This record gives sequence, C-alpha cells and structure tokens, in this order.
Amino acid sequence: MILLDGKAYRKELLEEYKKEIEDKKLDITLAIIQIGNEPSSIAYIKNKIKYCDMVGIRTRLHYLGSKTTNEELKILINKLNLDDNITGIILQSPVPKGIDYVSCANLIDPKKDIDGFTKDNIYNLYNNKKGIVPCTPKGVVKLLKHYDIKLAGKTVALLGRGLVAGRPLMLMLENENATVTLCHSKTKNLKAITKEADIVISAVGKPNLITGDMVKEGFIGVDIGLTSVDGKLVGDFDFEAIKDKASYITPSPGGVGPMTISMIIENLIEAKKNKGKNV
Amino acid sequence: MILLDGKAYRKELLEEYKKEIEDKKLDITLAIIQIGNEPSSIAYIKNKIKYCDMVGIRTRLHYLGSKTTNEELKILINKLNLDDNITGIILQSPVPKGIDYVSCANLIDPKKDIDGFTKDNIYNLYNNKKGIVPCTPKGVVKLLKHYDIKLAGKTVALLGRGLVAGRPLMLMLENENATVTLCHSKTKNLKAITKEADIVISAVGKPNLITGDMVKEGFIGVDIGLTSVDGKLVGDFDFEAIKDKASYITPSPGGVGPMTISMIIENLIEAKKNKGKNV
Repeated sequence: MILLDGKAYRKELLEEYKKEIEDKKLDITLAIIQIGNEPSSIAYIKNKIKYCDMVGIRTRLHYLGSKTTNEELKILINKLNLDDNITGIILQSPVPKGIDYVSCANLIDPKKDIDGFTKDNIYNLYNNKKGIVPCTPKGVVKLLKHYDIKLAGKTVALLGRGLVAGRPLMLMLENENATVTLCHSKTKNLKAITKEADIVISAVGKPNLITGDMVKEGFIGVDIGLTSVDGKLVGDFDFEAIKDKASYITPSPGGVGPMTISMIIENLIEAKKNKGKNV
Repeated sequence: MILLDGKAYRKELLEEYKKEIEDKKLDITLAIIQIGNEPSSIAYIKNKIKYCDMVGIRTRLHYLGSKTTNEELKILINKLNLDDNITGIILQSPVPKGIDYVSCANLIDPKKDIDGFTKDNIYNLYNNKKGIVPCTPKGVVKLLKHYDIKLAGKTVALLGRGLVAGRPLMLMLENENATVTLCHSKTKNLKAITKEADIVISAVGKPNLITGDMVKEGFIGVDIGLTSVDGKLVGDFDFEAIKDKASYITPSPGGVGPMTISMIIENLIEAKKNKGKNV
C-alpha cells in the first residue's frame, strides 16, 4: 500500500509556486470576503492567508458584518472585479443565512474566480474547455497524477454530489476518460458499486462509511470527507480496515485537504498569468 | 415487455399543447437559424416547422449562406434576442465549418434558448435549478415518467457523453436521484456495467452496440442512437435480441425521437409563460 501523501506533495508544490512567483516577479493579490463570524469560515480564511503568505501572495481581507445585505455584497464584488490590483476573489463560505451565496459568487469575474464555482468556469468544465477548475477536484486529480495513476479507462465510484467536490469532480474525471458512477444518499446497494470500482472516492462527511467489505483488493482510495469526532478530524474511510486492501490510499486528514489549499495557490498563479486573456 | 412508445405519447402531448396554446391564446413564434445547406440541418428544420405548425406555433426561418461569418450570425442572434415577437431561437446544427457553434449559440438569450444549451441553462441543470432543459434528455425523462417508471434509486448505465444527450442527461438523471454511470469510448468492460444496470440508455450511434448478453432480465432500455444503415434508420440496440429480457424498452426510431420534438414544443410554451421572468 502506498500512501497518497497530499501533505508531502503540498510541501513540494509550495516550493515550486514560491520559486515561480519570485522568478517571474508575479505580483498577486487575493481578496477574501468574510461575512459575519462563522467559526469555520474564520478557520478557512486563516489557512488561506497562511499559505498565501508562505509563497509570496498578498491577501486582502474584506470583512462584512453578519447583517450585510446581498446588495452590499454585490457592490463589494463589483468593486473588486474592477480593481486591477486584485488577481483573485474568494467569497468565503459558509455565509450567514440571508446571503444568496450562488447568485453573489456568480458575480465574481470568471477570470478572478479562484474557487471555480462561477457559471462560466463550470460551463467550461462541462464542455471540457480551459477555465479555472474548483480546487478540491483539481487537487484530487493532481494528487493521483503525481503518483502516476492513470485515470483513463478506470472505473470510479464517486460518493457525494455536492457542488464543492462531487459534482465538479465527476466532470473532471469524465474529462480524464475515467468511467464514473456518481453515488449519493438515494443510491441503493452502494457496496455493489464500490466493490467493483478501481477507484473509490468519498466526499460525504460520514465517518466509517467505507468499510473493508466494500472495496476490492488493490483498489485506489481517495477520502475527501472530514468530520470532527470527539475533537478529532476523521474521513469517510474506515482507514485501518481498508488500508491493506488498497494499492494507493489517501490519509484523511493529510490527503486531499493539503491539495485543496495548494490548488488555490495554483489557480491564483494561473489567474495572474491569464490576466486580460479570455477565460 | 412494454414498449416505451414515444410516437403514441407524442400524439397525446401534441393535442395537449395545441389545446393549451388555443385556450390560453399563447402567441408563440420560434425563430430558426439555418446556415448553409447541410442536408441533415434541412431535415431537422423541416421537422420542427411541421410540428410547430400542428400545434399553432409560428416559425420564422432565417437563412444565412454558407459563407456567413460568426460576426454576421451574432448580429442576427442579438436582433432576435431583442425582438419581442420572438419567443424562442434555435441555431440549427450542424453548422458549416468556420462557425463557432458554442460561442454563437451562447449568445442566445437564456429565456429564448429552446435547445437549453446556453451556459445559464446548463448551469441551472448542474445546480438542479429551474431553467430550460435540453430537449432529448428532457424527453427521455418525460417518457419514463409517463410509464410510471421511478428513477430514484435506480442504477443507470448511460452510454455516450455528448453535449446533446449524454452529458445533460447524466445531470438530469442525477437530479432525479438515479445513480448514473456515464460510459464512453474509453470505458473498459462495458458489459459488466450494463449487465448490472436497472436502466440502459444508449446515445452512441453505433448499431447493435447493446446485445442480449449485455443486459439483465427485466432491464429498462432507452435507445437514443440513430444511424442510417442501407437507407434505414436503426438505433444502438440489437432490438430483437434484447427485447424479451426488457421490462420496458423504446423502439428506435419511434421512441426518443418523437419525444425530442415534443420537448421543443414544451420548451417553447414554457418560454412563453416565463417571458420577462428570470430564468
């Protein structure tokens, strides 16, 4: 069994990014919009700032109070779109109730849309055209490729169809010529699907969802789930029970998470290089 | 075995549409853009005009020569977008080389986008939000529902990932809570997938692709493929070989095709009713 070590790969990637930013004198600024004081939003933002700092990307935090209206948020986004000093914009979720995340995030200029969630970037992904790709799916594919895992022709059981991971990842894997079965809460006989799959990817957020009897010998496992259990973060895999059947497997935490933050940096560098070009 | 008789259902639907258009005095005009003289385009257009006529929808054919530039096409689309007398616009494909179909079709006002191929409508489908849905996938789902076939929890082997049928149908079926495996030319061991599936849908265009040994007893079959063989149209199913194993099966032709044209009418009626509303 080989561990798909996202943490170690992140270290390499950050060095590459830092070097590229220095060598090419890339002047990059990420604007992060925080609304209210949702603890998980604060934690995500802190993490983004930390890694941007490490590679020489400036961050600018725009704090809006929890009573902010959609109109006020839209005005800020438009201002940031027009600001030539801003390379990328992230509207940090979760946002307070009352904020229409999808409509507001969609106002972000697609060329500055580091999360890759805007209509234009999703449409590009759907059409297998160049664009900014959501960070978690991009990180998963990049991690697999780093370990020379070929995706074309592989069968993938992909669990979870959320907009952050499952749905865009399905499109990305299809674009890589994998054969994907997208599973969800209404899927019957999940085990019959996972058991046949070359690659099992779980993005559900349910500890011990994937057990030893659900995977085949030599499978490749990617765990995107993260749940806090007794103050400890755990993934969707019953890791100890399945790891010996795996040919490759991510830990969780330490697998996909470090890739996601790396892809934010990569998307910022790409956005900088593509500035002024059509997405 | 029950035949999923799209042709018979179309007859019913057309009567309903005609009645609704008359009763509500819906004044509907479809603008069709034909570029050049591609024989299949001409045949598709002829068919559209015929069925629009039958239900009381006006059609306006805009013919552009085969040397038309993208700029000239864009000017026409913008004009039709602004024309309050036009309910819907279809840019008929195939278009001559030199015409950038995706970019041009994307200029169609999403509220007039009867094919449902524009960025906004695909994004709505991706997000499981209301919008105009592409006609072939919409017709497939409508036909299955007409026969009281529940999609939630069913496994679907969907063959073909084109933008007209496979890809949007994958999203639609997911939105209906089916569990979909999207298969394509790079899929290995296709038979293992189709053999397990509750529903087998083929949109490849390869006669006799689905043979008797590839389906399970009681499966539901939907054939979207259409290929001309010795002047006769045939689907992707080896129909005679698989029909007795099916619980429900479409003929091809006579299954999905009649549903597609019906959904064009339905999308036009919906576009008329939603006029002025946000998509």
